[in-house]
Amino acid sequence: MLTRADNEFLTQSGPAAPMGDLLRRFWMPALLSEELPERDGPPEKIKVMGEELLAFRDTNGRIGIVEPHCPHRGADLFHGRNEECGLRCAFHGWKFDVDGNCIDLPTSPPESTYKDTIKLLAYPTREWGDVIWVYMGPREKMPELPQLEMGLVPASHRYVSKKWQDCNWVQSLEGGIDTAHFSFLHAVPSKDEAKKLEIYSRSAALGDQSKPDDRIRWVTDDPRPKFSIIGHDAGLVIGGARKTDGPELYWRIAQFLMPNHAFAPAAFPGEIQYGQCWVPVDDTSCWIYTYSWLAERPLSNAERTKFAGGFGVHSQVDGDYRPLRNKNNNYLLDRTLQKELSFTGITGVSEQDSAIQDSQGPIQDRTKEHLGPTDIGIVEFRKLVMGAARALQRGDEPKAPSAPTKYAVRAGGWVAGPEKSLATVMTERFGHPHGYVGAEYGLGD
Amino acid sequence: MLTRADNEFLTQSGPAAPMGDLLRRFWMPALLSEELPERDGPPEKIKVMGEELLAFRDTNGRIGIVEPHCPHRGADLFHGRNEECGLRCAFHGWKFDVDGNCIDLPTSPPESTYKDTIKLLAYPTREWGDVIWVYMGPREKMPELPQLEMGLVPASHRYVSKKWQDCNWVQSLEGGIDTAHFSFLHAVPSKDEAKKLEIYSRSAALGDQSKPDDRIRWVTDDPRPKFSIIGHDAGLVIGGARKTDGPELYWRIAQFLMPNHAFAPAAFPGEIQYGQCWVPVDDTSCWIYTYSWLAERPLSNAERTKFAGGFGVHSQVDGDYRPLRNKNNNYLLDRTLQKELSFTGITGVSEQDSAIQDSQGPIQDRTKEHLGPTDIGIVEFRKLVMGAARALQRGDEPKAPSAPTKYAVRAGGWVAGPEKSLATVMTERFGHPHGYVGAEYGLGD
Amino acid sequence: MLTRADNEFLTQSGPAAPMGDLLRRFWMPALLSEELPERDGPPEKIKVMGEELLAFRDTNGRIGIVEPHCPHRGADLFHGRNEECGLRCAFHGWKFDVDGNCIDLPTSPPESTYKDTIKLLAYPTREWGDVIWVYMGPREKMPELPQLEMGLVPASHRYVSKKWQDCNWVQSLEGGIDTAHFSFLHAVPSKDEAKKLEIYSRSAALGDQSKPDDRIRWVTDDPRPKFSIIGHDAGLVIGGARKTDGPELYWRIAQFLMPNHAFAPAAFPGEIQYGQCWVPVDDTSCWIYTYSWLAERPLSNAERTKFAGGFGVHSQVDGDYRPLRNKNNNYLLDRTLQKELSFTGITGVSEQDSAIQDSQGPIQDRTKEHLGPTDIGIVEFRKLVMGAARALQRGDEPKAPSAPTKYAVRAGGWVAGPEKSLATVMTERFGHPHGYVGAEYGLGD
Repeated sequence: MLTRADNEFLTQSGPAAPMGDLLRRFWMPALLSEELPERDGPPEKIKVMGEELLAFRDTNGRIGIVEPHCPHRGADLFHGRNEECGLRCAFHGWKFDVDGNCIDLPTSPPESTYKDTIKLLAYPTREWGDVIWVYMGPREKMPELPQLEMGLVPASHRYVSKKWQDCNWVQSLEGGIDTAHFSFLHAVPSKDEAKKLEIYSRSAALGDQSKPDDRIRWVTDDPRPKFSIIGHDAGLVIGGARKTDGPELYWRIAQFLMPNHAFAPAAFPGEIQYGQCWVPVDDTSCWIYTYSWLAERPLSNAERTKFAGGFGVHSQVDGDYRPLRNKNNNYLLDRTLQKELSFTGITGVSEQDSAIQDSQGPIQDRTKEHLGPTDIGIVEFRKLVMGAARALQRGDEPKAPSAPTKYAVRAGGWVAGPEKSLATVMTERFGHPHGYVGAEYGLGD
Repeated sequence: MLTRADNEFLTQSGPAAPMGDLLRRFWMPALLSEELPERDGPPEKIKVMGEELLAFRDTNGRIGIVEPHCPHRGADLFHGRNEECGLRCAFHGWKFDVDGNCIDLPTSPPESTYKDTIKLLAYPTREWGDVIWVYMGPREKMPELPQLEMGLVPASHRYVSKKWQDCNWVQSLEGGIDTAHFSFLHAVPSKDEAKKLEIYSRSAALGDQSKPDDRIRWVTDDPRPKFSIIGHDAGLVIGGARKTDGPELYWRIAQFLMPNHAFAPAAFPGEIQYGQCWVPVDDTSCWIYTYSWLAERPLSNAERTKFAGGFGVHSQVDGDYRPLRNKNNNYLLDRTLQKELSFTGITGVSEQDSAIQDSQGPIQDRTKEHLGPTDIGIVEFRKLVMGAARALQRGDEPKAPSAPTKYAVRAGGWVAGPEKSLATVMTERFGHPHGYVGAEYGLGD
Repeated sequence: MLTRADNEFLTQSGPAAPMGDLLRRFWMPALLSEELPERDGPPEKIKVMGEELLAFRDTNGRIGIVEPHCPHRGADLFHGRNEECGLRCAFHGWKFDVDGNCIDLPTSPPESTYKDTIKLLAYPTREWGDVIWVYMGPREKMPELPQLEMGLVPASHRYVSKKWQDCNWVQSLEGGIDTAHFSFLHAVPSKDEAKKLEIYSRSAALGDQSKPDDRIRWVTDDPRPKFSIIGHDAGLVIGGARKTDGPELYWRIAQFLMPNHAFAPAAFPGEIQYGQCWVPVDDTSCWIYTYSWLAERPLSNAERTKFAGGFGVHSQVDGDYRPLRNKNNNYLLDRTLQKELSFTGITGVSEQDSAIQDSQGPIQDRTKEHLGPTDIGIVEFRKLVMGAARALQRGDEPKAPSAPTKYAVRAGGWVAGPEKSLATVMTERFGHPHGYVGAEYGLGD
């Protein structure tokens, strides 16, 4: 439970908010690479953490993310011409490059130096892992890109998608690191075991269920996983242990990475990894970037097709990345389905998440919540980000931006003896207590 | 004419407003019974006096009306499963009964007493007269249900509908107790008497005009009824007397019942009674519950079909109870029809009322109105409800909630000598100066 | 660049704003005559400078523009009956004439004088030049109608249209008096000269290009016209001079007329004149009235058809005067067209203007603009209207309302020697340094 003031502190991402300041110390996904496919193609309007921006790819393939209004008379450069290494305003022809420099100002004589005084706000950008990243903080604090494994593997080994979410980014992320809800939200209450398996196999909610699997039973039967948390330079390892049929525990271990990434806890060795990143559009909507990857092998065309049609945390979306099953159509909630085969009556793990997260309100009112032992991952997440935002207010920079290699981690599931600590389980599962795999990519130990 | 402050006082129904406090001393229609047809069926989102709520019918047929957000993490219980005498949250399985008790809390161990400390806000409910009622005031002040005759007669003798209205409840109710407007708003300006009779017979605006009737002429010819008012424990008798062809007066007598019911003034003996109840959704929209009943006989299937298709104050609505002719389609106003056959060009008495009431604005600006002698019913209504709300602010409870039997009254029309008082006319027409018929139902004299 | 306070001062048109006061010293176009075609026809809801009003044409053809809410109970007279020289409220039959007098009050006895105390707010109106004008200022300051030449010529010699614009009126007007943007916004970047000519001939952006014309080249080749300004009693002559192939200058001379008219600068002698008037609906939308006229001859049916389909500053609109290519459909911007044949990718000069003006924001943020030498027309316009509004705040009335004949001016293009002043050029082109042609209509010298 938070005070009203703390709830605002946690959830506000605008340029004037302390949490907005913290978020601006990190690189943010701004678009998928596929949204700017062509050099000199149409610019795209975007909105990131409350700021309206314009993104374009220039003649040389460089990406500009700039303030949309021309400094001359405020016309939107969206109407401009993207040509010859710059965006030219359609009103009077002023032209800017990806760094915001004014490179032509035809309403002044060629000999005039006026154009040297004109600057368009432009943020640094990177293109990596099929994602276009933007850094919106102070230039002198700009870190390296976080070395997520999905960006380290060859392009053939990953798949990246995005979806729109109609609520504040924090409660949606809190749903992502909350692995207790799998016993309910994504459950298949059918008594028909074959039918149940078929539905789970289509969802990836609990890993690869293409063959009969104990994990379904373990997760369904134990709604009270016991949580352990390990902090590291880039975030938190969040492990939840459930009973199995014997004395062992079934661990499902997620990763939270500062300030807005989370990895799903399902993957057994050799199964696909899933991660998500929540980027505020404003304080009541966000984009969720979702990435699947495998170190061991390329993803098959069949797998890509499956993801594109909505699978696991990949949503089925339209051409504007809006989920087909969404708030406006009540997620196509089917009450008969809910009675028989789906705990929610909503099809799709991603859509089940969307529905329940939206339903908490545009911004969840945390002054009324009642947290318990299964929510300690959320409690630790809040401590971490609110603590970092408070420290930054006092002038202490966050540590994670200067530890970009520490983002090279994995998450997943494991079965281990009841006496083992989370650190031991992590080491058994991943070879490192934090799930760190950067050494495999030459990033050091 | 009211001051701006008084206009706000009169029209605001939220939990923090004085008039909202007064309204919360009474049972309010929350839904039609038909909106929750099944046990363990889907819950329904409702909004009453600015409060968002969730209604559901449990396994035993009991009705719950509760705060929609789960106390755990704020997920909307609308997504929950209605099963085995309670609503179970889709997020982590917390479960609540119709009284708001937490009856299962699976994220805590079975032996934990945590769930005894968890309570969901739940309001008392009743189901009576095909209506689901809710009481949203202090529990210790909860009255009996108002004994409206429509609920006392067998179900076969009544018909209940509802419609959405796009404006504040007060101005819509003021239209309901204003019987002067029948000379205009519902008039049929045709010179063709047969056509005129046919249209009136389809409207019930002036009673049962299935045969030629002097009432049409009397109402059309006298736009200045003389009003008399009698107060009683449950409300006001509002009589308007018009000239007839001879020395007698044609009385049309409405009832206002605290705080938001009104009965139409048209019924001659043996004709159907019509009542309405205005329930604020918020301060700029309301639901109007409309009930027709007859003590003497069951309503016929033909009559029910007529009501369902829109007749008199029953509106023609879609599956969500939204009028087919509404603000968004300009009530299908037909200017040619207006020239020839309808004073407004809008088809339907209910729709004519809706249009003119909406047109007064989301909340009528009463600082600019100019009331006259034909508006004294409205003046007395305001005195009564504003007086009661002011008294309640001082700690004096309203009288009407503790006089539930006094709601068993009728309204209607009568022709009487010019020397007779309203009390005499009421006694001639109904056997009681207040139109009280409770004695027929064993409610005392 | 303006301060935030000055930007608000310039752009706010409501009844409480200083600029609103200034605008209310002038006659404003309120509707096209064609919008109220019939006597006793349906009233029309309009909104002018933030005020919701109702316009109707009575039995005698007179126009009423009145407050829409009946003084009795606030019902909207839009639902009323327009008959026998007045508008009768549909609620209780109160009736008002075009001057706002209550001419029938049937809820009071005929002998009552109550109705003499009831007054509906009504503004003076005029019908002239196919436009219905309204005056919303203090009655004792009411001026004569501005003697625009479009209203002085026979009806056969003019064509008037209107279109909706989704932004503040000032930035849209500033686009109208800014003749520098023709080198870009309306440019045709094709290298195919025949194609280029064909497109210009369909646009009228640079005058009558039905035959090959140097003007296209001159405007395209010189993006830095040199501006000169002459003030006169009704407004400003704004001349922009571009280089030609020889020593002469190509002048394009616009007129700004207080407080919200502008004439296009293109017409060579014998070519059609185009003027526009920006009327605030509220502070984030306006109607643009557009008029074309010729002193010399009637407009042909072919020309009228061309205008009706969208030509030059006449937009292609639907039955509600909303442009077919508008903000909601992104002006049907075609990026392929933009690469090849149109600087903007938007079809239509009027639509190109709309798009770029809307793109400046609902109200352009002038605290961030950077004006240069090609913007001095805009600077002088702001000085004039803001100075007049400040003077009015101090009690000094503006001069233009009392100089109605000085609106009889023309604008257009000319080619002249480089040594000639704007006054000389005007005199060569129009016979008068201000472009005044009132003498031809008997309005004096």
